[in-house]
Amino acid sequence: MSKLLIVGTLAFDAIETPFGKTDKILGGAATFIGLAASQFNIDAAIVSIVGGDFPQEYLNLLSNKGIDLSGVEIIKEGKTFYWKGKYHNDMNSRDTIVTELNVLADFSPVVPKKYRDAEVVMLGNLHPLTQLSVLKQMETKPKMVILDTMNFWMDNALEDLLKVIKKIDVITINDEEARQLTGEYSLVVAARKIHGMGPKYVVIKKGEHGALLFNDDNVFYAPALPLEEVFDPTGAGDTFAGGFAGYIVKTRDISFENMKNAIIYGSTLASFCVEKFGTQRMENLSSGDIQKRLQQFKSLTQFEIELT
Amino acid sequence: MSKLLIVGTLAFDAIETPFGKTDKILGGAATFIGLAASQFNIDAAIVSIVGGDFPQEYLNLLSNKGIDLSGVEIIKEGKTFYWKGKYHNDMNSRDTIVTELNVLADFSPVVPKKYRDAEVVMLGNLHPLTQLSVLKQMETKPKMVILDTMNFWMDNALEDLLKVIKKIDVITINDEEARQLTGEYSLVVAARKIHGMGPKYVVIKKGEHGALLFNDDNVFYAPALPLEEVFDPTGAGDTFAGGFAGYIVKTRDISFENMKNAIIYGSTLASFCVEKFGTQRMENLSSGDIQKRLQQFKSLTQFEIELT
Repeated sequence: MSKLLIVGTLAFDAIETPFGKTDKILGGAATFIGLAASQFNIDAAIVSIVGGDFPQEYLNLLSNKGIDLSGVEIIKEGKTFYWKGKYHNDMNSRDTIVTELNVLADFSPVVPKKYRDAEVVMLGNLHPLTQLSVLKQMETKPKMVILDTMNFWMDNALEDLLKVIKKIDVITINDEEARQLTGEYSLVVAARKIHGMGPKYVVIKKGEHGALLFNDDNVFYAPALPLEEVFDPTGAGDTFAGGFAGYIVKTRDISFENMKNAIIYGSTLASFCVEKFGTQRMENLSSGDIQKRLQQFKSLTQFEIELT
Repeated sequence: MSKLLIVGTLAFDAIETPFGKTDKILGGAATFIGLAASQFNIDAAIVSIVGGDFPQEYLNLLSNKGIDLSGVEIIKEGKTFYWKGKYHNDMNSRDTIVTELNVLADFSPVVPKKYRDAEVVMLGNLHPLTQLSVLKQMETKPKMVILDTMNFWMDNALEDLLKVIKKIDVITINDEEARQLTGEYSLVVAARKIHGMGPKYVVIKKGEHGALLFNDDNVFYAPALPLEEVFDPTGAGDTFAGGFAGYIVKTRDISFENMKNAIIYGSTLASFCVEKFGTQRMENLSSGDIQKRLQQFKSLTQFEIELT
């Protein structure tokens, strides 16, 4: 069985949207990636760090989904990473109100022995040097390394970010970040420049406008499912990445054609994530729900034109 | 053979984009709609009005494409509608610098006898009462009436606009206009409200983010082809509508499944339109070019997931 190694945050999120607000709830990139990937019944492990304040029930939630948590360090006397944010009315932009790194400030990830030969590594959004240190611990070269990052690291650790970008196969990044990273407005040109930085595959996430997958001259586009309302976008990008990675591990096929399917699975899972606050919807998702929504994606995008 | 009746402007456009600027060149909604529809070798006619300053070569260009111009009134002593605009760097927004209605101010369209039984009527962006007067002249109820409009009429002639919207089958509108018309941010909810105003089919154009087709609970999504650069977006929306209408007339099939194809043809033609200034690219477009790009649309959007 193929293995997926996930590195990323386990966190407390406090979220305010036009639909309501929450106290501290379960959040973090690794949480959303893990929950999405667990839909594929694969051998997935999270490498992360939490404080003594992180509830055992959150850990149980993840391990009950079959996710290996032996790489999660618990600092008893420390506090878990905490993020508080408020979404604007259009749900496409948000303000960060609180960021408390806490135990994350000194996070030095240790990859469990068992996962140092994982075929797929998903580097969730973290300091690029933290992401790099995970790659250095791999004893077998992974078949695919996927990296997610954000503008914060472009602003504050660009040189380190470029170092890790050079070593990966797939980057997932949003449209504004792709523009910032390359100085190019056209996403086609931006993707080409990012290819030049290392990754053979560039996934540009456009939120409610879907996602693009570039591989040289090949392009694939997956829309976001048009929804009546987006309740809480938190974690949608990570869920997308987790769905993508999980599908690749499950199918053991890294061809462009199969990556198209992985993108569709990622979009499908992300469309559930935004329906409720935090991880709520992802915690209770049946394979029947997923099949039904994949069918919606098919009728949303598939057409029959005979070409001559 | 089915007939397409097009009503809309024939105009002079002067355009400035980050890539350059033009003097007065051929423009207007009916021009772009007609050029796109002419790709389907159907019997299409334009109802419009121009001044004595409108070059014969522009008229020849359209009639050489097989478009019937017997419904184009020429006011010898008048001047043709003139629009001057400047696009911002992102190409998604523009400022109107000059709008001279000229002969358009007193335009009272007369539908040629031969086209009063056209199966498909395409009402290009004009005053809603002008659009309505065309519908009133039809002697046979068209199988499909398509309407394009814009925020200007929502601001200045909303009551008249709602009257014509009530009588049509398909509305094409951009995302911001759909939000303005309904007061709803979610495009799914906005489309449902617009259904309630009359049109069974709602097409929401999202520019570089593609287009959505709604019919009650059925939704179809066509992306815009990711382009290295958008040279001049002028006319893209009209080209999209003209491609949609032309394909429907050609295939004589108004099922939702066939409308999906029409949307793809519309998007395909629009992707050419933006490659050069004004009508330049649309004037010289081979069916080979179109087939090749349809193939690109297929590989851009089609995937193979086996559903259980």
